Amino acid sequence: MADLILTTLEWVPEAPRGFVRDLRVRWALEEAGLPYRIATTPLDPKTAGHFAHQPFGQVPWLEDGDVTVFESGAILQYLGEKSEALLPADPGERDQAKVWMYAALNSVEAASLPWSLFKFLRDESETPGRKLIEDWLTGRLVNLERELGGREWLAGRFSAADILMADVLRLIDRFGKLADYPACVRYLARATARPAFRKAFDDQIAFYTAADARRGAAS
Amino acid sequence: MADLILTTLEWVPEAPRGFVRDLRVRWALEEAGLPYRIATTPLDPKTAGHFAHQPFGQVPWLEDGDVTVFESGAILQYLGEKSEALLPADPGERDQAKVWMYAALNSVEAASLPWSLFKFLRDESETPGRKLIEDWLTGRLVNLERELGGREWLAGRFSAADILMADVLRLIDRFGKLADYPACVRYLARATARPAFRKAFDDQIAFYTAADARRGAAS
Repeated sequence: MADLILTTLEWVPEAPRGFVRDLRVRWALEEAGLPYRIATTPLDPKTAGHFAHQPFGQVPWLEDGDVTVFESGAILQYLGEKSEALLPADPGERDQAKVWMYAALNSVEAASLPWSLFKFLRDESETPGRKLIEDWLTGRLVNLERELGGREWLAGRFSAADILMADVLRLIDRFGKLADYPACVRYLARATARPAFRKAFDDQIAFYTAADARRGAAS
Repeated sequence: MADLILTTLEWVPEAPRGFVRDLRVRWALEEAGLPYRIATTPLDPKTAGHFAHQPFGQVPWLEDGDVTVFESGAILQYLGEKSEALLPADPGERDQAKVWMYAALNSVEAASLPWSLFKFLRDESETPGRKLIEDWLTGRLVNLERELGGREWLAGRFSAADILMADVLRLIDRFGKLADYPACVRYLARATARPAFRKAFDDQIAFYTAADARRGAAS
């Protein structure tokens, strides 16, 4: 079996390191124990080949022989078909894992991503839209706090849903909004204490540290 | 086999009619020819039973015997396991349909939803965050336009991905941003011309028209 190929940006500045979305896939691959190698695509300008593999010019994408899969959620589901470490075999748990994969992305990240853009830009304007985005995320966290207060993982046992949800919470935590939600904080600590997360995170940081050296050598 | 039960809000004001998210599930059920019935939950205040079925207090959710599934994307995937009308049997097309389901929600709707909130609030403030949200959606539409210029449906043939993408585009069109993207406009017209969409849409409108009468009779 040929290795899986995970493509990410060949270099990024300091700020997004540890948060580039190949992290979610690295983490899943480590949980599943699936062999893979990293390939790269330029940050700027993006190539025609990049758009051919990822129509929106994002990263990552995953190649498995002739199959190309993009969208972190879809990639984790694709890998979940290969490994019960990501999608439980029990039908009820498997259904709930898929539900929570979508919930992590479409209910929580849908609210946290625009919120984080304002934080990143330090745009604290007091407009109705800005206020609604703040309230939208607050509502999501209040409800998630209640859910996570009652269980260790989202779908009966650790699954791909926890990889997505934990990574979404990481960015909320980075910009300081998670501390008011102790069950969310404890859940995130449980998730990021996993050896597969640590390996994935350390690998991404090391990869971009080496990328700095490659750029230095090339210039 | 017991009918599937699709729960939505028992009443909503005029503005969201035709856009309540049970529409996506109604559409999918009509495409698949699966029998179902509608159940309701109050708009305000939301009940404990609502949160027990849908942790974020949203609609819809779907019950299939003892199984409850929420998130429109997860519900469509669940139904796709029951019907090739929603998820193609061909493995390559099936993978791509799942990829595009996530892309519709996480790449396009992730950008269009915050954009539409500002539109809904008529918040046209010229802040950096507001501008980034406008540019984010523009970028998504430019890329989607290129993809849709070359094909009829997203994953080889009509699938659940098209239900999600078309419904996402409907809201963008409602707020006037789709007209600059002719391939997107033609794609949306193709999708919404389908009998299953017409049935789902008409049923939702008729349901809330009847809900007005029920409220009138009760007051």
